[in-house]
Amino acid sequence: MKITCAKDKLNHAVQIVQKAVSTKAALAILSGIYISAENGKLQLQATDYEIGISCSIDAQVEIPGKIVLSGRYFQELVKRLPGETVEISSSNEDRTIKITAGTSQFNLLTLPAEEFPVLKPLSDKMSSINTFVIKDNVLRDLIKRTVFACATEESRPIFTGALLELTENDIRMVATNTHRLALKKSATENSTTGNNSKIIIPSKVLNELARLLTSELPVDVLICWEKNKVSFNFEDVYLESRVIEGQYPDYNRVIPPEFGTTVLINTALFMDAVERVSLMAKDGEYNVIKFQFNSNEVIITSNNPDVGKAYESIPVSTEGTEITIAFNAKYVTDILKNIGSTELQFSLNTPLSPASVRPINDENYNYIITPVRTN
Amino acid sequence: MKITCAKDKLNHAVQIVQKAVSTKAALAILSGIYISAENGKLQLQATDYEIGISCSIDAQVEIPGKIVLSGRYFQELVKRLPGETVEISSSNEDRTIKITAGTSQFNLLTLPAEEFPVLKPLSDKMSSINTFVIKDNVLRDLIKRTVFACATEESRPIFTGALLELTENDIRMVATNTHRLALKKSATENSTTGNNSKIIIPSKVLNELARLLTSELPVDVLICWEKNKVSFNFEDVYLESRVIEGQYPDYNRVIPPEFGTTVLINTALFMDAVERVSLMAKDGEYNVIKFQFNSNEVIITSNNPDVGKAYESIPVSTEGTEITIAFNAKYVTDILKNIGSTELQFSLNTPLSPASVRPINDENYNYIITPVRTN
Repeated sequence: MKITCAKDKLNHAVQIVQKAVSTKAALAILSGIYISAENGKLQLQATDYEIGISCSIDAQVEIPGKIVLSGRYFQELVKRLPGETVEISSSNEDRTIKITAGTSQFNLLTLPAEEFPVLKPLSDKMSSINTFVIKDNVLRDLIKRTVFACATEESRPIFTGALLELTENDIRMVATNTHRLALKKSATENSTTGNNSKIIIPSKVLNELARLLTSELPVDVLICWEKNKVSFNFEDVYLESRVIEGQYPDYNRVIPPEFGTTVLINTALFMDAVERVSLMAKDGEYNVIKFQFNSNEVIITSNNPDVGKAYESIPVSTEGTEITIAFNAKYVTDILKNIGSTELQFSLNTPLSPASVRPINDENYNYIITPVRTN
Repeated sequence: MKITCAKDKLNHAVQIVQKAVSTKAALAILSGIYISAENGKLQLQATDYEIGISCSIDAQVEIPGKIVLSGRYFQELVKRLPGETVEISSSNEDRTIKITAGTSQFNLLTLPAEEFPVLKPLSDKMSSINTFVIKDNVLRDLIKRTVFACATEESRPIFTGALLELTENDIRMVATNTHRLALKKSATENSTTGNNSKIIIPSKVLNELARLLTSELPVDVLICWEKNKVSFNFEDVYLESRVIEGQYPDYNRVIPPEFGTTVLINTALFMDAVERVSLMAKDGEYNVIKFQFNSNEVIITSNNPDVGKAYESIPVSTEGTEITIAFNAKYVTDILKNIGSTELQFSLNTPLSPASVRPINDENYNYIITPVRTN
């Protein structure tokens, strides 16, 4: 291999694929970044078998080739290289590669390229896969408004992922840890080859994906999936993930069809008050705070015998029955951080039945939260 | 106690004394912030016996008093309080205190105020102490240019502190871990009652002090000391520290009187090159890189059999004998980060004798570094 490329582009590509470099030492080759050069392109790849990412950049390819370099060292080095251009060249004699930039010169040991599990993009398959095209900002929004609600414990793997569902009219993402559930919908413009499809994607992968979906102008993301795998193509990036197997529960059954009490609240005021009250509630796992929804105020309180008591009052507009109910404070602040609207609608039935939080005038986002029984 | 004060001022004071709140659970009372109110002032204090800090702010004192509150909860709460003013009131009946701000109301449990080891400022003693006045920016500079060179291991306690020395003509700070030494001097304008004094102050305390010395316009810092204690008064803050006991070694013996080789180098270029070469050198504890000082370039190299090789060349201007020498890369980058000048002067004798790094044209700052023997 012998290539020359722009340092900034190389750094961009390395930072993108770096997220898929395995940090566990189980298989040495997975700690590497695979680099292949041909036809005026340099492609970088990394995979830890859960997530795989590749990124292509323009390069002057003098001699094509394939190599694998230590992800950790290559990333640190490229970030710090001087000048505008980088030259990478390998010799077949020893197992090193020479990286030159300005007066800097580095010889890095390579890993055996033939051992690398090269990605086989779903998007290259001509048949038997499902595809769907979505704008990157829409996909990012679906992820960001829901993925925080996933379970973090591994005891029930299905809840460590979020459900991506395509219906005839919309695309949805759903996440739950069984105590709270977030659902975000977006109307679809494009037709799909896989209507009524359900794909459960690990939350870790979705978080990485959302971080990479940062274009300034909206771009198309091509989603492809088959039984065990889902992939996302956008700009110069290809990302694939394993799919979590199993049957996602019917989330519609969790959403109450109607509510006896509906409360309109200013999000920022509510957020600050809940956070202050929750300060006094935190005691290990125990983080319960009480909400007394009156006709024109909500009184938020907590009582921790080892620390003290908190009392807050926020003006609200309540329709329906007054109600006192308790929630895990974290489940409330999580939605307030992610709701993205200045006013919200809190809907409730009884002190022991699930409640709903949603942005005012937005039918496409819903957050269901189960109350805590108190004395 | 019953007082009203500005929220921002209270928050300012809490954040300052917070640094001295003990995080170890050895003595419950040290996890608290002591608050006393009298004569239109609210004073906050915290101490973990190594460092003690107090800060006074203006307050409307309706009923004077003394209380101790959990440092952790009080700090988190004050930071988040709404509105402009805070009211704090205690009752003698139960062991709680009421904090009110806007529609927020908190009852915090108190700790027994009579158990708190109230600070007795050195500056209140009328006799038998030494004092010295210095501008805060000068003191901060003395600390920042040296304290990084202290030892971090506790095996030889004296080197975990830096030496503050007052001579007839200047004030100095010296720090060393026995492998490298930093010395910064500043000419003194003020007379002192304790000429030729030596005080060894824990590096942890100096780092906190430097962080608090952030006034926009230079202010006076009053330094007071006696056998076991040193204190710093500035603006509304009083900080005291234990002094590390023992005899600080004669650092002048470590500084070579003359050098056979003197090299002028651009700091930024040198820094970048050393950091890149050091990437390839890092291998657990082992972080040695080689410098070949030629007449108009320095060649910096490293060789790590498990990773690869690095080679950098930087233009320099050398006077005297050419020399090849090896250093621990961290000891070189540490001074480059702190030197604060665009050009530096690297002075050397032999591959096995101490070298000096200092800003060009600055006699008041010197960094001595011991080379590493290589094959």
